[in-house]
Amino acid sequence: MAEHEDERRHWDYHYDEIGTAPGTLVIEEDASPPELTLIDYTASSAIRRELKTPEDCKPFLKSHSISWIDFQGLGNEPMLRHLGEVFKLHPLVLEDVVNVPQRPKVEYYDDQLVIIARMVMPKPSEAGNEAGFINEQVSFVLGPNYLLTVQEELDIDCFDPVRNRIRFNQGTIRAQGADYLAYTLLDTIMDAYFPVLEDYGELIESLEDEVIFNPTRQTVQRIYQVRRDLMGLRRSIWPQRNAISTLIRDSSDLIRPEVKVYLQDCYDHAVQVLDIVETYRELTANLMDVYLSSVSNRMNEVMKTLTVISSIFIPLTFIVGVYGMNFNPQVSPWNMPELDAYWGYPICWAVMIAIALGLTTYFWRKGWFESLSRSLPER
Amino acid sequence: MAEHEDERRHWDYHYDEIGTAPGTLVIEEDASPPELTLIDYTASSAIRRELKTPEDCKPFLKSHSISWIDFQGLGNEPMLRHLGEVFKLHPLVLEDVVNVPQRPKVEYYDDQLVIIARMVMPKPSEAGNEAGFINEQVSFVLGPNYLLTVQEELDIDCFDPVRNRIRFNQGTIRAQGADYLAYTLLDTIMDAYFPVLEDYGELIESLEDEVIFNPTRQTVQRIYQVRRDLMGLRRSIWPQRNAISTLIRDSSDLIRPEVKVYLQDCYDHAVQVLDIVETYRELTANLMDVYLSSVSNRMNEVMKTLTVISSIFIPLTFIVGVYGMNFNPQVSPWNMPELDAYWGYPICWAVMIAIALGLTTYFWRKGWFESLSRSLPER
Amino acid sequence: MAEHEDERRHWDYHYDEIGTAPGTLVIEEDASPPELTLIDYTASSAIRRELKTPEDCKPFLKSHSISWIDFQGLGNEPMLRHLGEVFKLHPLVLEDVVNVPQRPKVEYYDDQLVIIARMVMPKPSEAGNEAGFINEQVSFVLGPNYLLTVQEELDIDCFDPVRNRIRFNQGTIRAQGADYLAYTLLDTIMDAYFPVLEDYGELIESLEDEVIFNPTRQTVQRIYQVRRDLMGLRRSIWPQRNAISTLIRDSSDLIRPEVKVYLQDCYDHAVQVLDIVETYRELTANLMDVYLSSVSNRMNEVMKTLTVISSIFIPLTFIVGVYGMNFNPQVSPWNMPELDAYWGYPICWAVMIAIALGLTTYFWRKGWFESLSRSLPER
Amino acid sequence: MAEHEDERRHWDYHYDEIGTAPGTLVIEEDASPPELTLIDYTASSAIRRELKTPEDCKPFLKSHSISWIDFQGLGNEPMLRHLGEVFKLHPLVLEDVVNVPQRPKVEYYDDQLVIIARMVMPKPSEAGNEAGFINEQVSFVLGPNYLLTVQEELDIDCFDPVRNRIRFNQGTIRAQGADYLAYTLLDTIMDAYFPVLEDYGELIESLEDEVIFNPTRQTVQRIYQVRRDLMGLRRSIWPQRNAISTLIRDSSDLIRPEVKVYLQDCYDHAVQVLDIVETYRELTANLMDVYLSSVSNRMNEVMKTLTVISSIFIPLTFIVGVYGMNFNPQVSPWNMPELDAYWGYPICWAVMIAIALGLTTYFWRKGWFESLSRSLPER
Amino acid sequence: MAEHEDERRHWDYHYDEIGTAPGTLVIEEDASPPELTLIDYTASSAIRRELKTPEDCKPFLKSHSISWIDFQGLGNEPMLRHLGEVFKLHPLVLEDVVNVPQRPKVEYYDDQLVIIARMVMPKPSEAGNEAGFINEQVSFVLGPNYLLTVQEELDIDCFDPVRNRIRFNQGTIRAQGADYLAYTLLDTIMDAYFPVLEDYGELIESLEDEVIFNPTRQTVQRIYQVRRDLMGLRRSIWPQRNAISTLIRDSSDLIRPEVKVYLQDCYDHAVQVLDIVETYRELTANLMDVYLSSVSNRMNEVMKTLTVISSIFIPLTFIVGVYGMNFNPQVSPWNMPELDAYWGYPICWAVMIAIALGLTTYFWRKGWFESLSRSLPER
Repeated sequence: MAEHEDERRHWDYHYDEIGTAPGTLVIEEDASPPELTLIDYTASSAIRRELKTPEDCKPFLKSHSISWIDFQGLGNEPMLRHLGEVFKLHPLVLEDVVNVPQRPKVEYYDDQLVIIARMVMPKPSEAGNEAGFINEQVSFVLGPNYLLTVQEELDIDCFDPVRNRIRFNQGTIRAQGADYLAYTLLDTIMDAYFPVLEDYGELIESLEDEVIFNPTRQTVQRIYQVRRDLMGLRRSIWPQRNAISTLIRDSSDLIRPEVKVYLQDCYDHAVQVLDIVETYRELTANLMDVYLSSVSNRMNEVMKTLTVISSIFIPLTFIVGVYGMNFNPQVSPWNMPELDAYWGYPICWAVMIAIALGLTTYFWRKGWFESLSRSLPER
Repeated sequence: MAEHEDERRHWDYHYDEIGTAPGTLVIEEDASPPELTLIDYTASSAIRRELKTPEDCKPFLKSHSISWIDFQGLGNEPMLRHLGEVFKLHPLVLEDVVNVPQRPKVEYYDDQLVIIARMVMPKPSEAGNEAGFINEQVSFVLGPNYLLTVQEELDIDCFDPVRNRIRFNQGTIRAQGADYLAYTLLDTIMDAYFPVLEDYGELIESLEDEVIFNPTRQTVQRIYQVRRDLMGLRRSIWPQRNAISTLIRDSSDLIRPEVKVYLQDCYDHAVQVLDIVETYRELTANLMDVYLSSVSNRMNEVMKTLTVISSIFIPLTFIVGVYGMNFNPQVSPWNMPELDAYWGYPICWAVMIAIALGLTTYFWRKGWFESLSRSLPER
Repeated sequence: MAEHEDERRHWDYHYDEIGTAPGTLVIEEDASPPELTLIDYTASSAIRRELKTPEDCKPFLKSHSISWIDFQGLGNEPMLRHLGEVFKLHPLVLEDVVNVPQRPKVEYYDDQLVIIARMVMPKPSEAGNEAGFINEQVSFVLGPNYLLTVQEELDIDCFDPVRNRIRFNQGTIRAQGADYLAYTLLDTIMDAYFPVLEDYGELIESLEDEVIFNPTRQTVQRIYQVRRDLMGLRRSIWPQRNAISTLIRDSSDLIRPEVKVYLQDCYDHAVQVLDIVETYRELTANLMDVYLSSVSNRMNEVMKTLTVISSIFIPLTFIVGVYGMNFNPQVSPWNMPELDAYWGYPICWAVMIAIALGLTTYFWRKGWFESLSRSLPER
Repeated sequence: MAEHEDERRHWDYHYDEIGTAPGTLVIEEDASPPELTLIDYTASSAIRRELKTPEDCKPFLKSHSISWIDFQGLGNEPMLRHLGEVFKLHPLVLEDVVNVPQRPKVEYYDDQLVIIARMVMPKPSEAGNEAGFINEQVSFVLGPNYLLTVQEELDIDCFDPVRNRIRFNQGTIRAQGADYLAYTLLDTIMDAYFPVLEDYGELIESLEDEVIFNPTRQTVQRIYQVRRDLMGLRRSIWPQRNAISTLIRDSSDLIRPEVKVYLQDCYDHAVQVLDIVETYRELTANLMDVYLSSVSNRMNEVMKTLTVISSIFIPLTFIVGVYGMNFNPQVSPWNMPELDAYWGYPICWAVMIAIALGLTTYFWRKGWFESLSRSLPER
Repeated sequence: MAEHEDERRHWDYHYDEIGTAPGTLVIEEDASPPELTLIDYTASSAIRRELKTPEDCKPFLKSHSISWIDFQGLGNEPMLRHLGEVFKLHPLVLEDVVNVPQRPKVEYYDDQLVIIARMVMPKPSEAGNEAGFINEQVSFVLGPNYLLTVQEELDIDCFDPVRNRIRFNQGTIRAQGADYLAYTLLDTIMDAYFPVLEDYGELIESLEDEVIFNPTRQTVQRIYQVRRDLMGLRRSIWPQRNAISTLIRDSSDLIRPEVKVYLQDCYDHAVQVLDIVETYRELTANLMDVYLSSVSNRMNEVMKTLTVISSIFIPLTFIVGVYGMNFNPQVSPWNMPELDAYWGYPICWAVMIAIALGLTTYFWRKGWFESLSRSLPER
């Protein structure tokens, strides 16, 4: 459980020092220095530029081409404030964009649409059988002919296929507006949840076997961690689904009706992700029940072993104890005459064997021997 | 649990590679090569044709007769794209139809109504007492006088009775429009859930007895699998019910009011299926409780057996141990004079029998012997 | 659990063979042959006739008097079809009426109101302490001045008080319309749930005592059956409550406002029944918890008994074992000189008694002896 | 559990014999003979009269002063019917008022507002630590300038402070209308729930300690009873809250807007009561979990005691048994030469002490001895 | 659990003596004597005054500057009544403000907006690993150009940063109206929940480790207390969130649209707090499951220890008992000839060692030895 520190991010939201004025930006010490990339395209052409300052965006914003400004890394407050000025962001928007993590949501401003989303990706190098994921906040600011995306981390995203589709003019993306670009990126984010969930699905399957055939202390710990992770995923997905639903229902000019058809598809994906998360949550809850019953079964088998062995040998030990007594046979004919009987010892053994066989049969008919052999590790 | 691979389909939805452009079709390697069957009928006649290409449908679509185009198998991308062109399907519709499984839903397009449904059927050859089901996606595209159905698999469906009703002009089906045909097929799909549920009902009943009279490790595994399967069924039925409800409420011209009366009946069936699934889910949750209590009861009986036998024999063994001591009676009159007493040995036995009887009575009054005999397998 | 077959009816709904045409009637083999009774009344007079065929109703339907046609038994398909023609029932209505059981509901047709209800009555001869109920479907078809009721079984209903009120002109029933008659019968059906629930209330109370003072395997089985029965009752009542609520809210001419006031009362009764069912469900869920804790407590007492007896006698048995050793005292003064000591044997006993007393005190202070005596059956 | 009979009232509602005509009044045998008190007041004066018959109210109803007619006890059917006539009550209203208990609710009639409420009070003489409550139905009929209250029992209510406020002209009550009086009484009823809940809060706190430090069979029984009582309280409060909410929202002339402000306060109290009941329900559910874990912990300690003592002495008993064997040392030098060794007996003791110390250390490091001492009753 | 008295405040609401007239103020004996502070500011200036009586506020209320009147401590009824007169508070408002604790809510009066909120702060000096919080009620009365806040306790609040922002003219607060001030204080209250939750997050993490590696009785007690505290927090937050939502939706002139944008941000924080509380509640529920399984695992290990040691030594003890019997070998050649055999004793040992090894192997293959070593405290 040493990796807690890292995983805490699933659970907690950013919060301000008490009494902080609205609009205060909090730059974390280990935040990456930002990089600013611009992709500007029309149906016929597309260019890509690394920009030095947000100021450099201005000429592109004025043109009629579609501009995608991708800002990665939150480690430079003046640059972020500058970005806010260039795009005329409301102070609260800038705060939500910078002070990560925030809850996914959609907000409407005069001629801007702000979407806060959470991107989830499988952990790149996964050792062993465990599932896990990294996640970062992606904020969208959609204007009439531009899309600003702000990412929490440098160089970690799942947008490369979209960049390629623009570059190589695949599909219709270059012929569409900034709203279609926003949809495409949102849909890419939703698609990235599926492989993460697939990992958890496989982990749950391996836990199913473990829980029935070989339950250990680690098993319950792993189930608990899966449930905690799924809670975290659910907390990302649930508001994200509502945000997409808001986009579809609301009547802003920034999203054209033909793009809303596509957003409906994206909404369907969000619902499917939620479906799977809920199913997995219920499965892991059931797994805990099965685990408890498995542990009880194990204890049952331990007890049966003890009971069978004790119950057979304790009466026999009593009998051999009897004939170990030192009553003096010479004092009285009633004092342990068995000891001097010709067949005393063999008869004693015969009685003991009869008792042992009787008890063995009794336990065998109860099916307890079954458990003695069954409880060897089967797999 | 080796059959997991197969059953995974209950849980998961189709998902695209991250960043796939909308409209991309994914053909699975083991998908069946498609077959295309057309049934074209009016009140007075009905014909059935195996068609080579979707192109061959065009003459029938133009006529006023009702055309049911049944496309089975998703193994041929060009043919599917061709189908999309012939029926003027929106790229997202074609994607939903081909990239199975999708969540059941209804969508309205200009003059088309798209229904994604999930068909469930009992597994054909069922060995032993287990329940199970196969399922496939059936997509409906309803136009003014045609119905296109696209099925995931070749030759596995429950539509033969409908085909016969058209062929032999049973009931009013030939006198009705394509909307009635769509209803009939949807209702047939809903009806097919009932025998699957009946299998689970019987399985749960057999588990009820097993759980009380003979709980084993396999029992808990079977309960878990039933709960997992019911979760899968619920995930199919719940959105399907909502889809039918959408059909009834929405005001499209494609479904006439008189057919909506029938759809209400179909909706009632969906509600009944959900009712049964929820009841079964609750019953299996209760069964887990009963199972846990049964395991505890069993352990109680094991412990009682051990306790009765140990408690009776341990004191007796102590007594015989006493008279096995070697204190020298010749040194002192206080050293074990019992050993030399005339009635020493019989009195010793008398005392032991008295103790044994006393303890036996005590345990008998506690009702513990009951458990010793009861715990033999009753049934 | 041999009576399962019979009780399955609580759980399952009627379902058609896959692909059956809508309107198909399914006559079960053991269905009763129908009987048809007509009660026709005005404020001033009332007659009762046994009719041969539905055809015989026609003159009464035309008159202005109120006609209650009571059709009992579903064993004759032609007669049922005939009934459908006489009353001009929609094929789907006839199907719901005949193919029992259906989910309770209300449906509006042109000048008819169809109500499907479920009647529940205590089992007539109830042996022992168990609760149980019989139930059958009652369908109402309410027209302007007639009420058709179709019952699943012959001669099993709770309507006799209503028949008597009409016959003897008790209350205002003869002065009211067919809608009031429908309300009266519905309310009678709702009232009949209460004695059934009272039986379950008493059963739960007896289980409360059993679960704490004398939990056995049968207890858990009985709790499980009560929960299953309550689930069945809830499945009847929940849609029935909604159906009555629909009647109150909807704006059909067939039910006059002054009768809606009475229906509100009937709705209150349905809510009360649901309240009680939910309370009982929660109580039985709590009872399962109490049962599990009782079983654990019992095991605790068994373990304490074993532990007290073992812990006292095992050390003593060790001591007597020591002095049963055969080390030769003649070889060495260190070899068991105790055996030849003058006070050896009495001192040995003194030590053993001291140990036994010490341990007894220890366990007594832990309160474990309490459990040894307490675990005798208290009641 | 002998007091069940009495407590059944929390759970059950009144129900009629099957088929009883609406409006039938059911007078219970032990119902109190009614008493009728009138309080008539204006801003300047207030009188109080014991009335003989409902007829005597008539002059007061005609005057412009506010009349509060308080009818206590339901033991006289003719008088109740007479009351119904004087106040022109709908037959169903009279039925709800008389056939107690009913579910709390609000109903509107032409110029009357009927409120059914449930009054709850702590049991007057409460022995020991238990909580409990008595409850009765209070029905309000609010007219333009009168308020009729009908109470189930004689002389048990919490209205005396209100009577005094009228008598001594405290606050503004005499200056207000009948609607304010109805609010005042309703609010008094809501206030009376708090001390009952306070009792349960204290009981739950005492159970918290008991469950952790001294769990017994009685504990689980008491938790169960608290949960059952809370269910009963919830069933009273939930519909009562809804009834008050209906009063606030509905647009009847009988309640003036300025009184609605006060009703909002009363509604807040109802919500607070529900809040507390729900919290207590959740706390007791948690307590059951804690109880189960406490019982398991206890059993763990019992098992540890047994295991420690058995595990230490059983090997030692084996060793002393070895040297109690009678192999003949004279036949062979290999036959138990230890018995004749000079240091045999001391070495044997040394070995045994070493084994005992070793095992004791092992168990001590496992922390099992801790449990041996800890399990003495701590408090 | 001696600190209960103190913590009861989380659970309970203020309630009046039964029948108390509305508007009655209840001054608790230990309530602090009130202090009254006024902060009056415009964009250009800000003053702070300690006032003697509410009367002194009047000049400031008339001016156009924004006045924040902060009233701390509820120990002086005449002063509170005076305050009510100066600000023209409705009697019910004054009651809610004074009779703490009340449920958070928003209420609209003619030209005033009343907000009841609950402030939560970490306990100042926190010893050990425990979490905890203090909480008090803060009531807001918002008028056109003033804000009255009434706090339950003297000198305990989290408003100092806001006071400083006004004093040093940080941010835009001095340029805004009283509505912005109300928002700022509400937001500060919401922000103060986060560090409290952070404490609980850390406590839950430490419990996660404890529950798996070292579960004790105290663990379950601590889990129970965390769950109880979270229930208390939830009861504060839930209505507070609803109150903020009411502020945003309602159309009062007192809150300008530009401040509603900020309130939306505050609402987001409330939702995040609720999210975290719900997650923690679910985590602790899961922890209880894990705890129960840990206790079962522990018991399993205890039982395995007992079973391994008993099962190995009990058969051996039987064997040595056999050769301790005193059958007379001289009477018969069948009477224990082994005792006189040359290799008797060594063979006896060989057999016993073989049995011990066999059983050890058997248990080792079952993996039970693992548990013997593993159950030493790992961490």
